[in-house]
Amino acid sequence: MYGAGDVRVESVPNPTIQEPTDAIVRIVAGCICGSDLWPFASRAATETGSRMGHEFVGVVEELGSATSGLNIGDFVIAPFVASDGTCDFCLEGLQTSCRHGGHWGGTEDGGQGEYARVPQASGTLVVVPAGFDEALVPSLLSLSDVMSTGYHAAKKARIEPGQTVTVIGDGAVGLSAVIAAKLMGASRIILMGRHTTRTDLGREFGATDVVAERGDDGIAAVRKLAGGDGTHVVLEAVGLLSAMEMAIGVVRDGGVISRVGAPQFSAVPLGFPEFMRNITLTGGVAPARAYIDELLPLVLDGTIEPGLVFDRTIGLDGVPDGYRAMADREALKVLVRP
Amino acid sequence: MYGAGDVRVESVPNPTIQEPTDAIVRIVAGCICGSDLWPFASRAATETGSRMGHEFVGVVEELGSATSGLNIGDFVIAPFVASDGTCDFCLEGLQTSCRHGGHWGGTEDGGQGEYARVPQASGTLVVVPAGFDEALVPSLLSLSDVMSTGYHAAKKARIEPGQTVTVIGDGAVGLSAVIAAKLMGASRIILMGRHTTRTDLGREFGATDVVAERGDDGIAAVRKLAGGDGTHVVLEAVGLLSAMEMAIGVVRDGGVISRVGAPQFSAVPLGFPEFMRNITLTGGVAPARAYIDELLPLVLDGTIEPGLVFDRTIGLDGVPDGYRAMADREALKVLVRP
Repeated sequence: MYGAGDVRVESVPNPTIQEPTDAIVRIVAGCICGSDLWPFASRAATETGSRMGHEFVGVVEELGSATSGLNIGDFVIAPFVASDGTCDFCLEGLQTSCRHGGHWGGTEDGGQGEYARVPQASGTLVVVPAGFDEALVPSLLSLSDVMSTGYHAAKKARIEPGQTVTVIGDGAVGLSAVIAAKLMGASRIILMGRHTTRTDLGREFGATDVVAERGDDGIAAVRKLAGGDGTHVVLEAVGLLSAMEMAIGVVRDGGVISRVGAPQFSAVPLGFPEFMRNITLTGGVAPARAYIDELLPLVLDGTIEPGLVFDRTIGLDGVPDGYRAMADREALKVLVRP
Repeated sequence: MYGAGDVRVESVPNPTIQEPTDAIVRIVAGCICGSDLWPFASRAATETGSRMGHEFVGVVEELGSATSGLNIGDFVIAPFVASDGTCDFCLEGLQTSCRHGGHWGGTEDGGQGEYARVPQASGTLVVVPAGFDEALVPSLLSLSDVMSTGYHAAKKARIEPGQTVTVIGDGAVGLSAVIAAKLMGASRIILMGRHTTRTDLGREFGATDVVAERGDDGIAAVRKLAGGDGTHVVLEAVGLLSAMEMAIGVVRDGGVISRVGAPQFSAVPLGFPEFMRNITLTGGVAPARAYIDELLPLVLDGTIEPGLVFDRTIGLDGVPDGYRAMADREALKVLVRP
């Protein structure tokens, strides 16, 4: 990506092992993330460009001398942040704060390509025990970010069985959050979104109600559905201030707003009135690595099928148009097969 | 209080039963709250004035026909919000959101006086089973707000044994939060405050370290004490934006800021950088009623002595000067014996 709206497909040298903890992975499937759309909308033009993509599944092709638990040929899931798996943050399940972690892309290879160097490979990569399975590729790929991110929202909110939940945003993360809320036993899941094909998928995933209105009308509609008081939990999967304001409007006193939409604003309007309501704000960037162990069995046994969020598959040449299609809301989430 | 800096002692009619759920309580001890200092500093002048005070202990003098569990002569603690004890919020322990609750003062009698009408008396008042005990008056009084508020901060943060905690603010709530953090098993309690007599009391209550610096220097000092990463939990007991900024600076990634200082600002600076750190913000106005059942036995058996936060006792005539003394930081917390 050379700047807003400027995505190009270029040949670069294959990555090589640089640290003994590295692995080289041949990418079987990558994708475009909702968070890639922020720079696609606004990044300043550059001469060098950044390699893009931070979600992929693939096959281990090469291993550094200090890796363990991995074999050449393993089919693996790469969560969107590298982590050593051994530091205190990793052991606490907060791999996004790993002391030796890092992000894909930029000057390194990203997930929208053919190969990637994976730092801290032993801590980062998760082997799919069943090996490669074409039919499972979308759902396994979703664990690298979008499904794990939706799950993070629900876990940080500590949803208890029987609680009511509002999910704000009918993008792939919001829909994944619906799956997560249902897994955790929410009795009512109100999905706020206005793209019918997406909210229909949300209903399939477990949403009990859909609210298409936004702003004050949306708040009123959710509150009405929730008996006047709002819901115990709100999962915010957009990242705009207007979405956060809706979250504050629909959360019940004493409730939790858990946000996984990367915030496009600098301060959260939680002042005195909200203080009197005992609202908790939690969430953040998802340590996907922490959740793959829990979610992978559910994908393998068919309990969940988060891969349904992918509604378009393209080759590498189609990536620039894939960005456009997602930005135009023509595609929900685009899967890339190099 | 007729406006900023203008507190007067006046005679008003004794309160009377107005609803069958009311009680009339003769106030044995009330006090001035740190939160009373906000209007004392800035309230616009009025002709009618507001009755002040929301913390008191006293003796039940009269009971409405629909009260139960209370007897004339009972020595009771009045938490700072009235609550019916039966609605869903009360049953969840969020009595500050009670569907029939209310606050003292204003056009009704407050706790800085001789008598008060207590609405929803059966849900609100807590009988001290041991009856009146002069020596215990300060600590029992502290349960009506300040100690319960400090405890709320710690409970909402869900402090686990062995965790590290920073307490921001050496006022009576901050010092009570130190007691609470120790009760919940914090291994290290760093108190940020610069009034030596107060921080000395904080050490007596369980603070292991004191940091007098503020701002970036304060953040650096706490981080250094906490091994570079900050503490798992921050209890924010001030309410100024500068205090919240310090809280964000000293909390460890994945950690919790629990605030009980009434915010004097409209938005919390938790944008993208903090999103990447998975910081949780919780807390709010304390449902003191929820905690008195837990804390009262600890006061009665001497496990905690939160009444030590009172360092001055005055009569009603001394109330105007009591405000001044607290505002000037000459007194930590002023007890009023009418």
